[in-house]
Amino acid sequence: MSNEKLIITVSREYGSGGRKIAKMLAESLGIGFYDGELLSLVAKESGYTEEFVRKNEQKKTRSLLYSLYLSSQILPAGDVIFIAQTKVIQDLAEKESCVIVGRCADYVLRNRENVVNIFIHAPFEKRVERVRDEYKEDAPDNNHKAYVQKKDKERVAYYNYFADENWGKAKSYHLSIDSSIGDESCVRIITDYINEIRSK
Amino acid sequence: MSNEKLIITVSREYGSGGRKIAKMLAESLGIGFYDGELLSLVAKESGYTEEFVRKNEQKKTRSLLYSLYLSSQILPAGDVIFIAQTKVIQDLAEKESCVIVGRCADYVLRNRENVVNIFIHAPFEKRVERVRDEYKEDAPDNNHKAYVQKKDKERVAYYNYFADENWGKAKSYHLSIDSSIGDESCVRIITDYINEIRSK
Repeated sequence: MSNEKLIITVSREYGSGGRKIAKMLAESLGIGFYDGELLSLVAKESGYTEEFVRKNEQKKTRSLLYSLYLSSQILPAGDVIFIAQTKVIQDLAEKESCVIVGRCADYVLRNRENVVNIFIHAPFEKRVERVRDEYKEDAPDNNHKAYVQKKDKERVAYYNYFADENWGKAKSYHLSIDSSIGDESCVRIITDYINEIRSK
Repeated sequence: MSNEKLIITVSREYGSGGRKIAKMLAESLGIGFYDGELLSLVAKESGYTEEFVRKNEQKKTRSLLYSLYLSSQILPAGDVIFIAQTKVIQDLAEKESCVIVGRCADYVLRNRENVVNIFIHAPFEKRVERVRDEYKEDAPDNNHKAYVQKKDKERVAYYNYFADENWGKAKSYHLSIDSSIGDESCVRIITDYINEIRSK
């Protein structure tokens, strides 16, 4: 499959460095990287501004079906954005090899071939450290532990709402890796994995 | 840590080829491999014969605490074997670098340093195929699907009973890999991972 398109989805725990690792991976493989960049594409698709998308995309909304029941015209912003993201992700997968971070891309592309799903995680304490020291995130009352816990819950809730309940289960991914080994090491291991696939 | 002992635990779904991959990995790294071999050591430890251990080690037993409550002297065979296995695994980890398959070794060694936990899985259909064609296992009524489902349940129940409820969650392992990529490829990826650790 050396000449075929390859879509790599990266799901990651908050504070695991997954986004950074995914970006390094895309650079190392010489293919596109979509995360923040995705937002501007999505914004165009949904008719919202990029700033509006950034603020609303992970907001909890009412049940999608309930919303559809209430009105076939007006959906909560979060749902409209998710639907637009889904279309953008599917179009990207049609068009080019790339790395897509988050946004339930693994779920969106679940019935497609040539998709490799990666999960990046790290022990809680390591993630708290990284969020405080590397991300330099401000946490309410400077309590980074509570902040990471809140982010963990939000991420799982987002996935469970829009996708299914398999977030973080090893079986949901082709490769899952603990980033404590180091970001560069992670990139090398994932690249090795991709090279094994490409050599088939 | 290039000169330190390294214990690699391999947990695996039934039919994923995890045991074979673990054996190839141990050979590739030139370190000990403990699975069936473990049984004879355990048998000596518990006073049971090797055959008795093989028949009883994964049998469901009553709650360990309830059994202890009923009698501080007589424990079900499965529990005695597990306690003996725990001791054997701890002794092995003290003594030499090795690969240990199954037996909740990841849980038994959870508070120890220099332990790398690997999880090997594969899609259900691939596992059914392997059990039928490669393991050549006889399944009741030749129904290999039902047989693999039963084995899955047994493995999870065994882990939940003796360890905790984290079996199969990506966070429980340093590296999880879908063996559909091929057994040799898995060995190479895991070896790369071990080499990254050793180079630190």
